[in-house]
Amino acid sequence: MPELRKDPVTGRWVIIAPDRAKRPMDYHHELKLVEGRFDPFAEGNESATPPEIIAYRHHGSSPNGPGWRVRVVPNKFPALQVEGDLEKRGDGIYDLMNGIGAHEVIIECPHYETNMSRLPVEMIREVLYAYRDRLTDLKKDRRLVHGLIFKNKGAMAGASLDHSHSQLIVTSVVPITVWEEMTGAMEFYNYRGRCIYEDMIHQELKDGSRVVHDTPEFLVFCPYASRFPFETWVVPKRHGSHYETIQRHQIEDLGGVLKTTLAKLELALDDPPYNYVLHTAPFDTADLPHYRWHFELFPRLTRVAGFEWGSGFYINPVAPEEAAAFLREVEIPSDYGKEHKASA
Amino acid sequence: MPELRKDPVTGRWVIIAPDRAKRPMDYHHELKLVEGRFDPFAEGNESATPPEIIAYRHHGSSPNGPGWRVRVVPNKFPALQVEGDLEKRGDGIYDLMNGIGAHEVIIECPHYETNMSRLPVEMIREVLYAYRDRLTDLKKDRRLVHGLIFKNKGAMAGASLDHSHSQLIVTSVVPITVWEEMTGAMEFYNYRGRCIYEDMIHQELKDGSRVVHDTPEFLVFCPYASRFPFETWVVPKRHGSHYETIQRHQIEDLGGVLKTTLAKLELALDDPPYNYVLHTAPFDTADLPHYRWHFELFPRLTRVAGFEWGSGFYINPVAPEEAAAFLREVEIPSDYGKEHKASA
Repeated sequence: MPELRKDPVTGRWVIIAPDRAKRPMDYHHELKLVEGRFDPFAEGNESATPPEIIAYRHHGSSPNGPGWRVRVVPNKFPALQVEGDLEKRGDGIYDLMNGIGAHEVIIECPHYETNMSRLPVEMIREVLYAYRDRLTDLKKDRRLVHGLIFKNKGAMAGASLDHSHSQLIVTSVVPITVWEEMTGAMEFYNYRGRCIYEDMIHQELKDGSRVVHDTPEFLVFCPYASRFPFETWVVPKRHGSHYETIQRHQIEDLGGVLKTTLAKLELALDDPPYNYVLHTAPFDTADLPHYRWHFELFPRLTRVAGFEWGSGFYINPVAPEEAAAFLREVEIPSDYGKEHKASA
Repeated sequence: MPELRKDPVTGRWVIIAPDRAKRPMDYHHELKLVEGRFDPFAEGNESATPPEIIAYRHHGSSPNGPGWRVRVVPNKFPALQVEGDLEKRGDGIYDLMNGIGAHEVIIECPHYETNMSRLPVEMIREVLYAYRDRLTDLKKDRRLVHGLIFKNKGAMAGASLDHSHSQLIVTSVVPITVWEEMTGAMEFYNYRGRCIYEDMIHQELKDGSRVVHDTPEFLVFCPYASRFPFETWVVPKRHGSHYETIQRHQIEDLGGVLKTTLAKLELALDDPPYNYVLHTAPFDTADLPHYRWHFELFPRLTRVAGFEWGSGFYINPVAPEEAAAFLREVEIPSDYGKEHKASA
């Protein structure tokens, strides 16, 4: 079973999940993305994945057979395992626990498609419902405290399969990044009495220079302290610390917002590798007035090097104002993605 | 001038250093390392770099001409600028300051050589002296509070030139990673009354399973909570929080330790891209009883993806015990590097 270990100085956790199929020296080459081969995520190939956890299906279709629109399955090579009791212990100055948790894959479409932006907006909304439903379900498990939903698009962003999908990793400890975000937002709230994300939306709308896209329910902008060129956040205008409390009319809006944002990034940057991460509050808290769930997207255009690893400082060669101005101007052709689909 | 901006939630700083030579859309392709072309770091090509800051030279040679062994020059494309007054201000909820600091390159040898491990041990020691001398000098500048020395080896690790070199970035704020490390080490000291690095050395020596190399002055081991496969730390056995207080006999030992450690990583992993970072205490503190300077090395074998960015959690597929066992067994041939040099 994988093991969670804590760095005794920084408090950062790592998952030690030895890949039994490989010997240490097999790690000397970068993982390559397998393209254009057998697609285990395609409709009809359901037996190539572990049995599904949930799927949104057409009436009359059967689990683990064709007839689905979105399908959630356990990761075939999970970083954490869902079975067993949570065991925590010490080893001298070190702390560890067994690797209890969940690692799921959200397959975003039944047909072969690499880019979420090219899916019809109705399908993107179903993916957003799947995120909500999985978090709501996993939250019932008292051993688990936080769910992180993320997408790796392209080999340079960590994807090992190119059929459009996202992942969910649910852990038994609150990740340090989430912890830092909650703490920072709480400090601001205690000092100023307002949610920092609300203040951010006000200031971004007033200033305008970093805004990419503005809808009734969401603001899309390049954050003031962007770590990466073209880093882009999608923040709801309505309060809510936990993504799983998202309302239907928010999902209706968010589907189009995500499609537009991803299409703009792809058109501006020639279909770059990218990651997005859904930031949301831990399971074991009630609604937090100081926090707001949101998406952070970043194309992987620059390499993170020694300075960034050592300092936590990032060097960003593109000012967010420049990136936002560029993204605002990107026009999305009405047939975006259609051409690609026809040839697939 | 570059600008330092602070993320209002996490407190993380970024350096916004727009590269005027490029338009935003030029960022859609990964930077490639330029190999086998004109070498601006080679002896005889001194005019290709900005004028040197220091160089260890043979008697009778002139600055910015041939006859040096190690040469330190300003980075031609600096992330920070050394001239000007430090100006801090707010912009609504955001905080910023101008990009005052230093960004230097330590050229580790006069001849073309890509691997520090292949340099004679005497040359590696001179590099270690150069680190000390630059930190000692920059520390006098009251605007600056921390110096980070690091190496990017190979394009995948962020290098843009392959002639063996390291870099120094000195900042006007303490980087968040350094701050977290200092705070964690201080909490341990306050609670237990001992330096955590001393405890770590004791436990690693007693356990033995993560030890790679053990000398009178240094312990080389794969840390308990390794973030990356084959992550390796070099920790001095003697107390000292600031690298610039390193003693001559420590440098004598460290030269060989670094050479051996790098050679083992290269032989085990087929000359991988890697980073190392010198962790050392901020300039503006006296010696800290709870902290110890050290090197952290990590080959870049896996891709950091959405989960790591979102959580600060790392998934490591190679247990440090496995990595250490493997590295311990690597024998370094007596002619390591010689063959390469002969053909260069």
